[in-house]
Amino acid sequence: MGKVVTGASMSLDGYVSGPGQSGFDRLFQWYGNGRVTVETADPGLTFQLTDVSAAHWRRLVAETGALVVGRKLFDFTEGWGGRHPMDVPVVLLSHSVPEGWPREDAPFHFVTDGGIERAVAVARDLAGGKNVVVNSGTMATQALEAGLLDEVGIDLVPVILGDGTPFFIAPADAPYTLEGPVSIAEGDRVTHLRYRVRYDD
Amino acid sequence: MGKVVTGASMSLDGYVSGPGQSGFDRLFQWYGNGRVTVETADPGLTFQLTDVSAAHWRRLVAETGALVVGRKLFDFTEGWGGRHPMDVPVVLLSHSVPEGWPREDAPFHFVTDGGIERAVAVARDLAGGKNVVVNSGTMATQALEAGLLDEVGIDLVPVILGDGTPFFIAPADAPYTLEGPVSIAEGDRVTHLRYRVRYDD
Repeated sequence: MGKVVTGASMSLDGYVSGPGQSGFDRLFQWYGNGRVTVETADPGLTFQLTDVSAAHWRRLVAETGALVVGRKLFDFTEGWGGRHPMDVPVVLLSHSVPEGWPREDAPFHFVTDGGIERAVAVARDLAGGKNVVVNSGTMATQALEAGLLDEVGIDLVPVILGDGTPFFIAPADAPYTLEGPVSIAEGDRVTHLRYRVRYDD
Repeated sequence: MGKVVTGASMSLDGYVSGPGQSGFDRLFQWYGNGRVTVETADPGLTFQLTDVSAAHWRRLVAETGALVVGRKLFDFTEGWGGRHPMDVPVVLLSHSVPEGWPREDAPFHFVTDGGIERAVAVARDLAGGKNVVVNSGTMATQALEAGLLDEVGIDLVPVILGDGTPFFIAPADAPYTLEGPVSIAEGDRVTHLRYRVRYDD
């Protein structure tokens, strides 16, 4: 069975976005500062990655079978137009099904009750043995609290944002102990780190 | 001339201490989980470091010529009994000179006006061309804001504390861009990272 993982580009001071949704130009700089062109399922979204970051991204895509996302990210991206850049099924955990959804042409699934446990279970069924990726921070925090999160990927970016949205939002029952990094890969203006969550501490 | 640097053990979510001064057992675990015994100037304080962390610590000590600290850290450690574990002069930046100080036997200096600029200048004079280390977060934040900070060392610890004291406390004029990591060293339950501050961004 695949793992349940989360990942984000994060500033040195722990933020996945700056105040008022700022800072993305810096946090996502590494998606555009390399010589390797990487296509996504979205024809309008192409990355220019360094060799290291391209290998990181391709591994992530190869390992991912389904996504669990929250309403904020879904609305912000307008449901990725019905097809996520990673081209995998998407499970939206939300209090209600957004207007205009579900759509027949889009592999999007809607969980309105049962919480993160139900959303992850639905995603597992869709993932075909691959990993379930839980994003963004709010969903990841809920998965962490529920004891469901196996791994945390941090794309650590050398910027101090000073304020904004933390990756993990005051998770209940903190502290949580992790193991690792189980891998480190240095890109340009990013260090890709992966950690394993250890719930027995 | 030496550099002005800061460093701290920090959780994955950016905290240098958990709620109510908690979390130090986890943040400082790497000071006690290795086979290399490292003495300090304080006979009561000995570390057990891994080879990697011992090399990291010895380099830090070798490069450090003076410290700038704030009142919170000074009071918390009771002025290190008059001798800092790194055995270098200490400059305290504080609104007032603490009771019982200065002491003839202790290389402690007190800056009560002129702010971080004055404290760093005094420390530079004492550092003999070596680095000035500015700790903890409040002082480091002021040095960052004043354009004085050359490097940031982060001993990144795989724990999610969820809340507490951030390394950098809402620095004015954020975001700040850094370069690097200029070095990465993997210890056991710690990754030693160093970044250079770039003020021209």
